[in-house]
Amino acid sequence: MAGQRTPQRADSRRNRERLLAAASEIVERDGASASLEEIARRAGVGSATLHRHFHSRRELLTEVFLTGVQQIVERAVELNAGPDDNALAVWLDELVRYTASTRGLAVSLGTRGEASGCHGLLEDVATELMASAVKAGRLRPGISPTDLLAVVNGIATQAENDPDMGSRLLAIALEGIGPV
Amino acid sequence: MAGQRTPQRADSRRNRERLLAAASEIVERDGASASLEEIARRAGVGSATLHRHFHSRRELLTEVFLTGVQQIVERAVELNAGPDDNALAVWLDELVRYTASTRGLAVSLGTRGEASGCHGLLEDVATELMASAVKAGRLRPGISPTDLLAVVNGIATQAENDPDMGSRLLAIALEGIGPV
Repeated sequence: MAGQRTPQRADSRRNRERLLAAASEIVERDGASASLEEIARRAGVGSATLHRHFHSRRELLTEVFLTGVQQIVERAVELNAGPDDNALAVWLDELVRYTASTRGLAVSLGTRGEASGCHGLLEDVATELMASAVKAGRLRPGISPTDLLAVVNGIATQAENDPDMGSRLLAIALEGIGPV
Repeated sequence: MAGQRTPQRADSRRNRERLLAAASEIVERDGASASLEEIARRAGVGSATLHRHFHSRRELLTEVFLTGVQQIVERAVELNAGPDDNALAVWLDELVRYTASTRGLAVSLGTRGEASGCHGLLEDVATELMASAVKAGRLRPGISPTDLLAVVNGIATQAENDPDMGSRLLAIALEGIGPV
């Protein structure tokens, strides 16, 4: 009997992963009002399965949000281990694009609760990327991670649902306005 | 009889100006919930006089907001006519500090109605300051006024009621993150 439960659990885990992947895509396109039916359909499962895994829209959206943050954190670690001198700027661009795309989601979840711990996580990985960038001569010392993330976040508020605008504004801030 | 009306009108105009000056100071400190009684007291007039000049809190707040925008626009013209090569950066700093201080006010008034025309005014004066800055070799060409004001506005959203933080974040964006 115990042997039969393993494939069921694997199925369940796979369904959950497919639901989260589908939800991420559709939430990125439609924001917090994304259709749960469409998410279930895209994941290839029924609505009942979706509701068994996620008891409310808020629970699903929170998981989508946390999954996104986790990916951004993992991406920072990956970039920081890689050879690119410009890792910080690459990561900040990915961050501003993600934040611009999913800002409606963050606003609808509010800044309290599950999401509030994320700021510390992002600040930790930003601190490491910034230390590498200073060593590589790509960042002047003396800028705090809190301030740099505040600039990125501020830019994302102006580029809601427009990641290209987010990239463009970030480039101004990273390069400065002075002539090259 | 006509002769008597002139000093009355001058009194009335003076009261209105004193009310607006008092309201600007108190709204900058307390935001949109500023006490109307305190504003009248500071202006040295009675509450009835305040209500004769401004029929609602919203009307007073709108006038405070428009007066602030007008001062920022006049300041841009003044700086642009002056000898300072760095006029654009000085003005952007004043703008981010003002916007950070009065963001609660702008949010409470909403972005529609009387306030919506202001963005065009600010963009016009920013365009002129930017043209001078490019000529003076203080600004690289190719940055649009819309984008630059969006960066400033985004920063102000992160520095609500903290103009010093606004200045600090703006300095990062104007100088860029690269080593000097």
